[in-house]
Amino acid sequence: MGRERRIMHIDGTHYRTIWAEKGEICLIDQRYLPYEFVIEKVSEAPQIARAIREMHVRGAPLIGAAAAFGVYLAAREIASKFVEFSDESEAKFLKFVSEIRDSRPTAVNLQWALKRQLAHFEKVKVESRSWEELTRLLFEDAERILEEDVEICRSIGKHGLELIQEISKQKNGEPVNILTHCNAGWIATIDYGTATAPMYFAQEQGIAIHVWVDETRPRLQGSKLTAFELGHENIPHTIISDNTGGYLMQKGDVDLCLVGTDRTTRTGDVANKIGTYLKAVAAKDNNVPFYVALPSTTVDWELENGMDIPIEVRDENEVMIIEGKAAGKDGIAAVEIGPMTSPALNYAFDITPARLVTGLITEKGIAEATRESIAALLRG
Amino acid sequence: MGRERRIMHIDGTHYRTIWAEKGEICLIDQRYLPYEFVIEKVSEAPQIARAIREMHVRGAPLIGAAAAFGVYLAAREIASKFVEFSDESEAKFLKFVSEIRDSRPTAVNLQWALKRQLAHFEKVKVESRSWEELTRLLFEDAERILEEDVEICRSIGKHGLELIQEISKQKNGEPVNILTHCNAGWIATIDYGTATAPMYFAQEQGIAIHVWVDETRPRLQGSKLTAFELGHENIPHTIISDNTGGYLMQKGDVDLCLVGTDRTTRTGDVANKIGTYLKAVAAKDNNVPFYVALPSTTVDWELENGMDIPIEVRDENEVMIIEGKAAGKDGIAAVEIGPMTSPALNYAFDITPARLVTGLITEKGIAEATRESIAALLRG
Repeated sequence: MGRERRIMHIDGTHYRTIWAEKGEICLIDQRYLPYEFVIEKVSEAPQIARAIREMHVRGAPLIGAAAAFGVYLAAREIASKFVEFSDESEAKFLKFVSEIRDSRPTAVNLQWALKRQLAHFEKVKVESRSWEELTRLLFEDAERILEEDVEICRSIGKHGLELIQEISKQKNGEPVNILTHCNAGWIATIDYGTATAPMYFAQEQGIAIHVWVDETRPRLQGSKLTAFELGHENIPHTIISDNTGGYLMQKGDVDLCLVGTDRTTRTGDVANKIGTYLKAVAAKDNNVPFYVALPSTTVDWELENGMDIPIEVRDENEVMIIEGKAAGKDGIAAVEIGPMTSPALNYAFDITPARLVTGLITEKGIAEATRESIAALLRG
Repeated sequence: MGRERRIMHIDGTHYRTIWAEKGEICLIDQRYLPYEFVIEKVSEAPQIARAIREMHVRGAPLIGAAAAFGVYLAAREIASKFVEFSDESEAKFLKFVSEIRDSRPTAVNLQWALKRQLAHFEKVKVESRSWEELTRLLFEDAERILEEDVEICRSIGKHGLELIQEISKQKNGEPVNILTHCNAGWIATIDYGTATAPMYFAQEQGIAIHVWVDETRPRLQGSKLTAFELGHENIPHTIISDNTGGYLMQKGDVDLCLVGTDRTTRTGDVANKIGTYLKAVAAKDNNVPFYVALPSTTVDWELENGMDIPIEVRDENEVMIIEGKAAGKDGIAAVEIGPMTSPALNYAFDITPARLVTGLITEKGIAEATRESIAALLRG
């Protein structure tokens, strides 16, 4: 694994968040954003598992793509030692896969990508039984997953754009104020993002928008990642503490809430970054439309009730210690925000019940957050 | 003005937050909590104005007490140069008062304390016209304000205790989970606190409680001050990001929300630290009782609609730069939490409409958050 570090200069160059290059998988190590632009190059499956677990990459679609490349790297490793399938080589391969599977329990896209890649494994197992053949198939499909994701985000952008256009018309071209939580942006996907895609399309169309960026404690993906993205695309935006959105809605300063999701039930309950529910319930209280942007792969067709989604509890130090650029200095610093003798609890996600969701923006169009509407749009 | 610094050892000694000693006004400079226990000693009115403005002291009752001492210091300053009232001396005095008045626009207690102290000014103006006499009266009344506030907090504690006792009974003695936002604790008052007084009384009575402490961005008064207070009183508590409370309510892990207020309208709308409204609307959505603890002096009898309360906009750097103890090191550090090229907006308070408030716990008993119930309890 190599590391290239340089001070952020992405302005001129177009990057995707993950790509294959000279036999290595390259990814933007997002832990260093917005201060440094670090490209991590990995060549072994456990490194992918670690990159997912330790959030070098995050965001449902990107995690899925990374996992797909992880399975490819696992097969490549096996192919370097075994020609044909065997009990021993299959067991080794599946051990790699299982390490990737365990790296992020909430991410339904990760499971989806593994399932898709394992279908190739099953096929090769009854056909050629060649590790080289499997490696090739897995690489091709990982590349295909990237292209499909970009296309999905573009479609989400087009459908979401219509909502923004409609509000812009109602406001006679005054800026449309959009509140977003966490980062469902291009750096959570491969390109464009989910919740941000409609914003980027609106910007392209010359529609005036302004984005309220929830800082999104504890990990601050809003202030660190979303503000960084929007800034580089010259989209007017303002960072706010997570406590602020409700008051902005009360004052009439929010026209639309637009967030992503890690997992949505077939009934329309939405698991997303902790704090999403608070914005949704405030949006309902103030008649502000609340939309969720998602690739249809994020729908969990098994689950009825969002509250049954297991919610990851992360390290309490994510609450108690905040990392960032040392103020007015070079380098990264960390501060303790309270007595370290006090315990902290760090749920990573919460559940926004379908009754608070105005609509789900998918690549296939916009569904209401109901079992019927979701099924009709995505399975109809 | 002197400064005494020492590493926190308040465990053995009982402190109030403000007191007079040897001709100086001593106050705990809360900007250094929970890491250092700094006592600031001031002897001039503009220092009081600065201590309020720059939040060395905060919390409605404490601001009121500090303002009362500030008026005393103003009169003492004038008394050192003038014996009798005159146009010139009165103008100088009122200029000091006006500087104190402008130090914190939202704090109704500050206005209340000034009004109370200015009544002495008006009285002396038509009677003795002696600056020495006024100085004496102002000091005595500032001391009286302290004692009254302690008594008020004790009474709030007793009334709030009944609510906790009731929930404890329903839970058969299982710990009562109380969520609080910001700091309405002893360090926001003179002693006991408002929202914390019922907790301290419950602890004394041996009733099992556990407190969810909202960290309370941007200034983190929850993790820095409330956790510090509760820890020193050995009350079980857990620090959470502000985003977390809604999910805890959804899971049934919150029995009671209990917060303070800077200003409550006669109709029961509550101005409190930004983010309070989000917790109130989530509490309503989950049938969790939402109580506000307040001295009756915090009621603004003029205002009908909470949304008419002017909300202070504070420095955007409070959002963008977080100060705390340098993690794993000595001293204070500060980190930037996003691109400093992005603007931030920092409303200090929001408005919780009366319809979301289960009750108001005052020193005179518990009122419903309605015009009628408030008037009957506090003016009846």
